[in-house]
Amino acid sequence: MLFRREDLEAFTKDVFMTCNVPEQDAITAASVLGLADVRGIDSHGIARLHTYVGLLREGAINPQPKPGIAVESDATATIDGDNGMGLVVGPIANRVAIEKASSFGTGWVAVRNTNHFGIAGYYVLESLAHDLIGIAMSNSTAIVAPLWGSERRLGTNPLAVAFPGKQEGPVVIDMATSTVALGKIEVANRKNASIPSVWAMDKSGNATRSPLDVLRGGSIQPLGHGRQTGGHKGYCLSALVDVLSGVLPGAAWGPYTPPFEAGRSRPSRDVGDGIGHFFGAMTIGGFAEPEDFMQEVDMWVKTFRATAPVNPDYPVIIPGDPESAHKSRREAFGIPLSNALMKQMLAVAEQAGVAIPEPIQS
Amino acid sequence: MLFRREDLEAFTKDVFMTCNVPEQDAITAASVLGLADVRGIDSHGIARLHTYVGLLREGAINPQPKPGIAVESDATATIDGDNGMGLVVGPIANRVAIEKASSFGTGWVAVRNTNHFGIAGYYVLESLAHDLIGIAMSNSTAIVAPLWGSERRLGTNPLAVAFPGKQEGPVVIDMATSTVALGKIEVANRKNASIPSVWAMDKSGNATRSPLDVLRGGSIQPLGHGRQTGGHKGYCLSALVDVLSGVLPGAAWGPYTPPFEAGRSRPSRDVGDGIGHFFGAMTIGGFAEPEDFMQEVDMWVKTFRATAPVNPDYPVIIPGDPESAHKSRREAFGIPLSNALMKQMLAVAEQAGVAIPEPIQS
Repeated sequence: MLFRREDLEAFTKDVFMTCNVPEQDAITAASVLGLADVRGIDSHGIARLHTYVGLLREGAINPQPKPGIAVESDATATIDGDNGMGLVVGPIANRVAIEKASSFGTGWVAVRNTNHFGIAGYYVLESLAHDLIGIAMSNSTAIVAPLWGSERRLGTNPLAVAFPGKQEGPVVIDMATSTVALGKIEVANRKNASIPSVWAMDKSGNATRSPLDVLRGGSIQPLGHGRQTGGHKGYCLSALVDVLSGVLPGAAWGPYTPPFEAGRSRPSRDVGDGIGHFFGAMTIGGFAEPEDFMQEVDMWVKTFRATAPVNPDYPVIIPGDPESAHKSRREAFGIPLSNALMKQMLAVAEQAGVAIPEPIQS
Repeated sequence: MLFRREDLEAFTKDVFMTCNVPEQDAITAASVLGLADVRGIDSHGIARLHTYVGLLREGAINPQPKPGIAVESDATATIDGDNGMGLVVGPIANRVAIEKASSFGTGWVAVRNTNHFGIAGYYVLESLAHDLIGIAMSNSTAIVAPLWGSERRLGTNPLAVAFPGKQEGPVVIDMATSTVALGKIEVANRKNASIPSVWAMDKSGNATRSPLDVLRGGSIQPLGHGRQTGGHKGYCLSALVDVLSGVLPGAAWGPYTPPFEAGRSRPSRDVGDGIGHFFGAMTIGGFAEPEDFMQEVDMWVKTFRATAPVNPDYPVIIPGDPESAHKSRREAFGIPLSNALMKQMLAVAEQAGVAIPEPIQS
């Protein structure tokens, strides 16, 4: 079944409001999830609504946070998210980075005491809308092993960066720093499919092709997996996100990150508040003539598209291409929801007493 | 044969001075190479002296650059390196980032019209010495293919980040964003050894186990290599470095980067000046109580070291550990130079009319 983005967002907003989320915050949170759905990142859109709702209902997330600046300099700050949804706290903190950039050329904001913030891409696209280079990252619940380790110690810790272009751009990078995102393991598990043995390990640290082994206490490999293929580099990237997002602002980090699932116990040892994010915004004008830079990004894009491919059926693409293609298609024809997702949405709707959106009539 | 760091640096300085490099610049450049040697990054130390000298002698690099600020805001700048050695221009630009950080909480400096800057780790260790978080990256001569491409389009584009600790830290990340650095392909070639088939391709885009295929027009894979194992992420990282270091300040980028080898022709199409670097420095105090942060970094380090290993012979290590271990050993016992390197150093010494350093007597 296909749905309009605005209808899914209106539903999401209404559901959040039944959890005592103020209307404006509910609208913002719904738009972050809606952007994931329209850009084809199905695991991070309305598919996560039941998790947010579960955490709000059990009191693990504060529905009415008052985020505030805890530490500040001209071009930097740490914000305490008051244990709100990352979908609400993240956009506020990112806006502070954007404001600082317009005053000082660049702004960098770390956030503690927050929760999962949706797709990192949302934040860098916000910066793009202000003609800025945007950077966003977040630590997350531990599921990734460091190189040579057999235990969950790091999140899939996403990193996003966006550069504006003119006709050809933008270039939008949005990636988990692990070999794969957890969502791909979950999808394989639902389909009863096997996974490549370099993706993950079982709970004893043995390579596994079973997604269930991973979900039952196993761990995902860092980007690059083994030592010879660069697994130490993926570990470094994931560590970088964990220290900037988690350690720096005083959020929890590494194995002490809280679970992103209702009804789960929290780590017994507390090293910080919630999870953490880290946002950066840079004015182009602080480095170059903006017009020149954006034209050069266009030329960069054209040059990379023209790379000779290994296989002509798979031309070289530009970071952000798959998501842009999804967006064009889904804005025109609607967002498809799987049967499993429909069932989940019905359950959320019933519990909240909110009517589910009308599908698009074909 | 083993050499003292200070003796190698004095030799390097003297050689640079025979190329009309002013004494103070020659000392700085020698110290960047010396740091690579003492940290065990043999490919980036005195092993590169003959290349710098060749480029200086043929006039491809300006021995007496006057780097200047081309664009500036409070917390950002672009510096034109006046086609100097990156070993001279890089430290100057990084110092501007450090100064801006002390005034505005953070400083970010892009550099164009520069050349290879040695190890990225040098710059972040300079920031650490000022109790700052340091970031450094540089684009470089194209040798890496984007995912699905069969042509050289990106450099190995290193990225370094350092976080200060107290007893346990620092955490020092310094990595090429490709599956492997070019140096490892060259080492395999000298030893007539084969390389893993996921590292690189021949000039037609076929996976190869022959290092010579790579050196003869082939290309290195991005970190993560194939699509299923995350090669799109490595491509994104490398692109990120290329755009921030190259496109943003108006340096050459992608396939248009100049060769780092004397006697080679330059790309016929010119898209910018020289290669480019990008430096960032952030005060801890702009985000947190510095003492708290550094103690927490210590706890992070201890926690990660204590991760259960897959194989007890390979405990989980911390980014920067291998380089620190080299430094302790080499400061105590000297820096070993291979026979091939000794021969190269003799040739440089003879051409320059400078005496080679005395090895350590055992």
